[in-house]
Amino acid sequence: MTLSKKITAKIRDSFAKQAMMATFGAQVGEIAAGQVTLSAPITDACSQQHGFAHAAFTFGLGDSAAGYSALSIMPLEAEVLTSEMKIHLLAPAQGTHLQAIGRVIKPGRRLVIVQAEVFAIDKDSRTQVALMTGTMVPILPK
Amino acid sequence: MTLSKKITAKIRDSFAKQAMMATFGAQVGEIAAGQVTLSAPITDACSQQHGFAHAAFTFGLGDSAAGYSALSIMPLEAEVLTSEMKIHLLAPAQGTHLQAIGRVIKPGRRLVIVQAEVFAIDKDSRTQVALMTGTMVPILPK
Amino acid sequence: MTLSKKITAKIRDSFAKQAMMATFGAQVGEIAAGQVTLSAPITDACSQQHGFAHAAFTFGLGDSAAGYSALSIMPLEAEVLTSEMKIHLLAPAQGTHLQAIGRVIKPGRRLVIVQAEVFAIDKDSRTQVALMTGTMVPILPK
Amino acid sequence: MTLSKKITAKIRDSFAKQAMMATFGAQVGEIAAGQVTLSAPITDACSQQHGFAHAAFTFGLGDSAAGYSALSIMPLEAEVLTSEMKIHLLAPAQGTHLQAIGRVIKPGRRLVIVQAEVFAIDKDSRTQVALMTGTMVPILPK
Repeated sequence: MTLSKKITAKIRDSFAKQAMMATFGAQVGEIAAGQVTLSAPITDACSQQHGFAHAAFTFGLGDSAAGYSALSIMPLEAEVLTSEMKIHLLAPAQGTHLQAIGRVIKPGRRLVIVQAEVFAIDKDSRTQVALMTGTMVPILPK
Repeated sequence: MTLSKKITAKIRDSFAKQAMMATFGAQVGEIAAGQVTLSAPITDACSQQHGFAHAAFTFGLGDSAAGYSALSIMPLEAEVLTSEMKIHLLAPAQGTHLQAIGRVIKPGRRLVIVQAEVFAIDKDSRTQVALMTGTMVPILPK
Repeated sequence: MTLSKKITAKIRDSFAKQAMMATFGAQVGEIAAGQVTLSAPITDACSQQHGFAHAAFTFGLGDSAAGYSALSIMPLEAEVLTSEMKIHLLAPAQGTHLQAIGRVIKPGRRLVIVQAEVFAIDKDSRTQVALMTGTMVPILPK
Repeated sequence: MTLSKKITAKIRDSFAKQAMMATFGAQVGEIAAGQVTLSAPITDACSQQHGFAHAAFTFGLGDSAAGYSALSIMPLEAEVLTSEMKIHLLAPAQGTHLQAIGRVIKPGRRLVIVQAEVFAIDKDSRTQVALMTGTMVPILPK
């Protein structure tokens, strides 16, 4: 489904205001209704003790992708907050980039259930490194 | 319980090698058997769109505190990996610092169940901003 | 905090209508504002292949205790639904009874974050067998 | 992938010993390597206060399907325990039957990451009522 230009612009504006995403070097990829992709280079600054992407980095990229997937199906004036999120770390996050695909599992007026899959991209490979499920809360102006 | 100097040194060494923790400006606080405290200033570089600490930052500090609490009760040659972690975000992470207290809930040879509580510290207040529970996996040399 | 008789009666009425609780042989224990205790005998009908209480039984008792702890702090006309729940199974549920203590972690108009601890009671012992955290949604008449 | 008759028989034997599954009236459906389906009628005995399937019933069927999916890829002498499981309840479990499909997400010698989807089946409809992800632990004889 195609999104209105206003919703797409709102997601890009919100993303640009998240300093943490700039620190991660993250970028917005494809934005569709209920699905948003983010990616970021795996750099030294965001690694753990073995040189792989740190779980905080993997979590942050997946959580943001999931949050924007929820935002993509909400009214233009809404914002969104993560209430809870579970992450399974499936493999070492080794490669040149991380890619996170957030998806709405179940929309709702009061809660939006979301999922994110995070992949480590290397020259010739793409490995799923995390599976996340969580709850997003729409915030509407009073 | 007092920890051996070797275990304490091992935790400090491992922490020093996590570049993500340096990017967060994080520091190790108290280290006891089964409980480790970390703290970090809330800076612009790790904030979300409203200027509060980003969920990735809160998650990362809590996950590391929990992981080191598990490491504190393992044999000296062991390392530890997060297998899964759930975070409930309870309040906006607003203030000067984050403090994360990781604790072992149930030790085990193959799995260690852990908890972390994360607090936002301001001049006159200390507010719990996250509750986390998760599974750590000991890695032993073969 | 003491609860009004109306809230206490409402919790007992709701519990009595849950046939699954009768199948478990469960009973309501102490009801306080934000904390509710349930218990049930460990019988053959609700066991797994080794004769311990089945995870579905442990989960159900903990989930209900947590749900009623949320209901205890809501307006009289409200009902409550579980949106999500995570359970860590910490030890085999062996003994004569299960006891579940549900507690509100963070109240809210739209979401209530809850915790439950489940214990296996035997003649001379009380062992924690599960730790649960979850999200309850208040349902108000329109 | 086809499973050996021995593995299939082992899963049916283990299922037959779970009294809780008999109380639910549950039956084993398709057994494949890494995927097992269970189903059960929605009866009064396993309902909540509105007559829908109780969350304990939904959880129990999904957890067992997920556990048997893990068992299906383990050595013949192994058993399996749930360490942790998260359930998102997506819709009221209304209809004639529940169907749970358990699937291995990531196999492992020490941990198996699993998923389960639970559906409510009615005359003309099939609605997903739960999404679960969890951690199974293989138990091998010493």
